[in-house]
Amino acid sequence: MIDETHDPARTSWVESANGSSEFPIQNLPLGSFSPNGGAPRGGVAIGEMILDLSLAARSALLSGEAKAAAEAGAGGALNPLLGLPGSARRALRRRLSELLKDGAPDRAEVETWLYPASACTLHMPAQVGDYTDFYAGIHHALNVGRQFRPDNPLLPNYKHVPIGYHGRASSIRVSGAGVRRPSGQKKSPDAETPSFGPSARLDLELELGIWIGQGNDLGAPIPIGQARGHIAGFCLLNDWSARDLQAWEYQPLGPFLAKNFMTTISPWIVTAEALEPFRIAQPPRPGGDPAPMPYLWDEADQAGGAYGLDLEVFLSTRAMREAGTAPVRISRSAARHLYWTAAQMVTHHTVGGCDLNPGDLLGTGTISTPDDSGLGSLLELTRGGSAPISLPGGETRTFLQDGDELSIAGHARAEGFATIGFGPCTGVVVG
Amino acid sequence: MIDETHDPARTSWVESANGSSEFPIQNLPLGSFSPNGGAPRGGVAIGEMILDLSLAARSALLSGEAKAAAEAGAGGALNPLLGLPGSARRALRRRLSELLKDGAPDRAEVETWLYPASACTLHMPAQVGDYTDFYAGIHHALNVGRQFRPDNPLLPNYKHVPIGYHGRASSIRVSGAGVRRPSGQKKSPDAETPSFGPSARLDLELELGIWIGQGNDLGAPIPIGQARGHIAGFCLLNDWSARDLQAWEYQPLGPFLAKNFMTTISPWIVTAEALEPFRIAQPPRPGGDPAPMPYLWDEADQAGGAYGLDLEVFLSTRAMREAGTAPVRISRSAARHLYWTAAQMVTHHTVGGCDLNPGDLLGTGTISTPDDSGLGSLLELTRGGSAPISLPGGETRTFLQDGDELSIAGHARAEGFATIGFGPCTGVVVG
Repeated sequence: MIDETHDPARTSWVESANGSSEFPIQNLPLGSFSPNGGAPRGGVAIGEMILDLSLAARSALLSGEAKAAAEAGAGGALNPLLGLPGSARRALRRRLSELLKDGAPDRAEVETWLYPASACTLHMPAQVGDYTDFYAGIHHALNVGRQFRPDNPLLPNYKHVPIGYHGRASSIRVSGAGVRRPSGQKKSPDAETPSFGPSARLDLELELGIWIGQGNDLGAPIPIGQARGHIAGFCLLNDWSARDLQAWEYQPLGPFLAKNFMTTISPWIVTAEALEPFRIAQPPRPGGDPAPMPYLWDEADQAGGAYGLDLEVFLSTRAMREAGTAPVRISRSAARHLYWTAAQMVTHHTVGGCDLNPGDLLGTGTISTPDDSGLGSLLELTRGGSAPISLPGGETRTFLQDGDELSIAGHARAEGFATIGFGPCTGVVVG
Repeated sequence: MIDETHDPARTSWVESANGSSEFPIQNLPLGSFSPNGGAPRGGVAIGEMILDLSLAARSALLSGEAKAAAEAGAGGALNPLLGLPGSARRALRRRLSELLKDGAPDRAEVETWLYPASACTLHMPAQVGDYTDFYAGIHHALNVGRQFRPDNPLLPNYKHVPIGYHGRASSIRVSGAGVRRPSGQKKSPDAETPSFGPSARLDLELELGIWIGQGNDLGAPIPIGQARGHIAGFCLLNDWSARDLQAWEYQPLGPFLAKNFMTTISPWIVTAEALEPFRIAQPPRPGGDPAPMPYLWDEADQAGGAYGLDLEVFLSTRAMREAGTAPVRISRSAARHLYWTAAQMVTHHTVGGCDLNPGDLLGTGTISTPDDSGLGSLLELTRGGSAPISLPGGETRTFLQDGDELSIAGHARAEGFATIGFGPCTGVVVG
């Protein structure tokens, strides 16, 4: 539902929120932070400031569901807030939007809840109970499939099943944490036996993350018509991948060490309600593709279950940083290239009875464009390492080198609405 | 280290612990329980009683590391206790063994810490942060592989890599919880398109679970020589599997809905120290098999990193129960048939930098015998459903029917030591 919190004319007395900030008053994403030296607590990003939910929770300026939401978000991890009905999250949004807008009468008190983001440490916004990674980027699946099975790039199940697998929750980190190059077993096609050593084919994967709000009981699937109500928000996600480890280990049970050494997410939960203006129809399937099975089919989801989100990937090598060269954009993709909606992923996940819990995280899978302008991994960008990409200063890359800094950026854009951003999703490879 | 707590002559003043109990004074497994209506708390099984760690923690009868361990185990989930150094767990064991042995002077006080197990509810012993399932039962891998790839049953990586994948932590339940038959997509080989419906090929998998004690930091692998110190204990594990869902969904990223609807474990953590007398040498690999890579090789682990544990599977149909027929044993296997040791699984899991946390759970994979006496799944027992097994009363089974009760039992046995058991690992299939 689009309401006054989405009014593009609304500005904030927090001046850094106006103009080109990723966190205008129309965004108000949720996170967890520590002001210098303080304990972790819930927060809301507004421009270059962070609003402290633990202080807001104690104020008489909040009441009812908004106050309950602030109280649930006062601790270090937002799981309790995510577990509340979406109406509580929306009430908090409406109240904070009122309190932060230009001319708000209680500015003096609300100012005492704000810290400069530059003086804060950001944490995981919630404790991820389980992390699941889907494979809903069909162009990525095609591109990767073509490298391994030129005649049969998409497996027969792909257009019927939202393919996904369980990932590692413990090694998810927020933007900024160093990415240690993993060692492991690998075997080159011409070698007799495997060898052990650092991955030489370290890659990124451009994904969105989906934060689960209210969960479901074991044995009680979430119908597709209700699935969107279980999604609290979204983030950017880099599913770092060691391609050489992956190729050797992944059969028959899927990727393991090739992925579990680290996953980087952007620290802010951009809420489902903040993204309401950016909902778009799920693009129609190409002729000949099967219709989703009834349990995955919902008219409303088809009409507005996708999102108008632009996604970009930037690379900056150590040499580029030393030369003062700006990061170079190596990919420009968009969330609309996903073959399944977030609601379809949620419903499929639970259709056999699996329980989701508040703070669970789903990855969408790598989002590549149909053409070469927005490939979401170096595996695709360099055609399996055979076609290096050129960088400023004469460097080239097939896969990531030590010192390389990789950043994903995401922006929701729609005619007539303020653009909102996701914040950073960055990691530097350390040897 | 074998000490006086393993003395087979030691008996307890808790009389039900003596004789043939699975929980003699030599066992003292750790769990979480509620006495009728009470809050969850840590407990130790002794015969038909449960000792309340929250009461023990407040007593002057415990001190030092033993008291610290009881305090860490006083809450509803044992993660804090699992996170202590193993020396604390061992000190608690030694002290409780002293207090519970025949003739202990403080019996009167300790009696006030005991509840009859029959009046208690057992909970998950710890909150499982991440659950990983390995595939270390080579005979299971061979049997399953033969069904899918008769000419090439074991994939080339199997004898080099301890194959594993991430499982679903949220749907793990302790023994006794009903197992809801999952619905999902499936496609028979002769069908053009997939269909949706309840699984018709519901199966069990006989496994051991490995409880992680102290964890490791992200990026800091656990060397093989230290891996055993990160294992707090073991349980029984049934990795319920929907074979029809699995066959259709599992490529290319591995099993997902086919497994995540439920995993049943026995409620007690049988500690690494309780199992000390049952350590045996890892059976030598058949001639021609590759040696484990150096990162997986440790002389001490090879000499005593396997366990002498007998494992049995019992099936009881609704008709059998109504007729008063005892459950029938359908499989008799043993932990020594694992191709990799628990330490090798821990080290492999972390070698790329993945962090483990206290209370993480690893499954070993299905443990089948080399011959047909101890096959760990119906997929193997019935040769893919083509050779039904006969049950008392004239029933047959290929896969599990509604009302079927499946139980796994485990006993550690060694000459000159008291046999210890794992407690129940049971589930009834509900439609």
